[in-house]
Amino acid sequence: MPGGLDGVAVPSSSPTLVRMRTYDAEQLLAVAREEALLGREAGGVPIGAALFTVTGELLGRGHNRRVQDGDPSMHAETCAFRAAGRRPHYRDTIMVTTLSPCWYCSGLVRQFGISHVIIGEATTFHGGHDWLAENGVGITLLDDPACVSLMTEFIEKHPDLWFEDIGVEKT
Amino acid sequence: MPGGLDGVAVPSSSPTLVRMRTYDAEQLLAVAREEALLGREAGGVPIGAALFTVTGELLGRGHNRRVQDGDPSMHAETCAFRAAGRRPHYRDTIMVTTLSPCWYCSGLVRQFGISHVIIGEATTFHGGHDWLAENGVGITLLDDPACVSLMTEFIEKHPDLWFEDIGVEKT
Repeated sequence: MPGGLDGVAVPSSSPTLVRMRTYDAEQLLAVAREEALLGREAGGVPIGAALFTVTGELLGRGHNRRVQDGDPSMHAETCAFRAAGRRPHYRDTIMVTTLSPCWYCSGLVRQFGISHVIIGEATTFHGGHDWLAENGVGITLLDDPACVSLMTEFIEKHPDLWFEDIGVEKT
Repeated sequence: MPGGLDGVAVPSSSPTLVRMRTYDAEQLLAVAREEALLGREAGGVPIGAALFTVTGELLGRGHNRRVQDGDPSMHAETCAFRAAGRRPHYRDTIMVTTLSPCWYCSGLVRQFGISHVIIGEATTFHGGHDWLAENGVGITLLDDPACVSLMTEFIEKHPDLWFEDIGVEKT
């Protein structure tokens, strides 16, 4: 894919393609994973995310802040989106997240027209990424072992916190 | 609907029905509309929302804060959700909003299992409420003239801000 991304299939209809350079989705994921680890160190939900331009410029990064700020609206993706600040549009952006985005974060991606989502893993939680793909968003699922381990350990240790974070009522 | 809500059809499968009292969706909308007016007075996007329990207790209220806080993640619904703070689940809650919820806010409702959405109007913007209804969320669309006027005037005066708020790229 001349001028495209290694490992990232961006819809060829996207006019932003012409401005892309070659780089690696794994490198972008590393930033989100760093954020997830920061969240874990702070006793929070260990999910991290970052928003980049399609040319690889970092716009914002963040992690889930439910525990740290007592804020249920700050999922990793919303936190990274917030950190990026106001933009007239997001057609030239890529969201990178350590975990398959939930409906809330998938809705964010769809509404704001973020062109692509790079996902660390969807083994421990399968969110709305199929829906995004059906609606024209490019999806790269990396199946990263470090991301899987992070969430597996977290869910085992803190099931109540995990269920709270995804709005699942315990029965 | 014994013990239910006037004008609000909640899925009969919901166990929360037994705890409902009779009140009026219009009254709940009035709180969201007050928030929208506060947003307009501050020069922001005039959309307001509030989260209530199904028994009518106010949990959180807020309005779009894109302009005021330079924060694109604070749509009215997310702002109200944030103000409500952490909860173990949202099955017993109702989101009231002056405008049909965009995909981002519809995703919030679906992910967190908010049982019902009361909507001021869907004339100036048709968001994801049909999708929510298809997925088991109760929807009450009020077609409120004051809400329609508020958005009509705003879109006419500030089209760039409106397009930015819903992630629509100007062509």
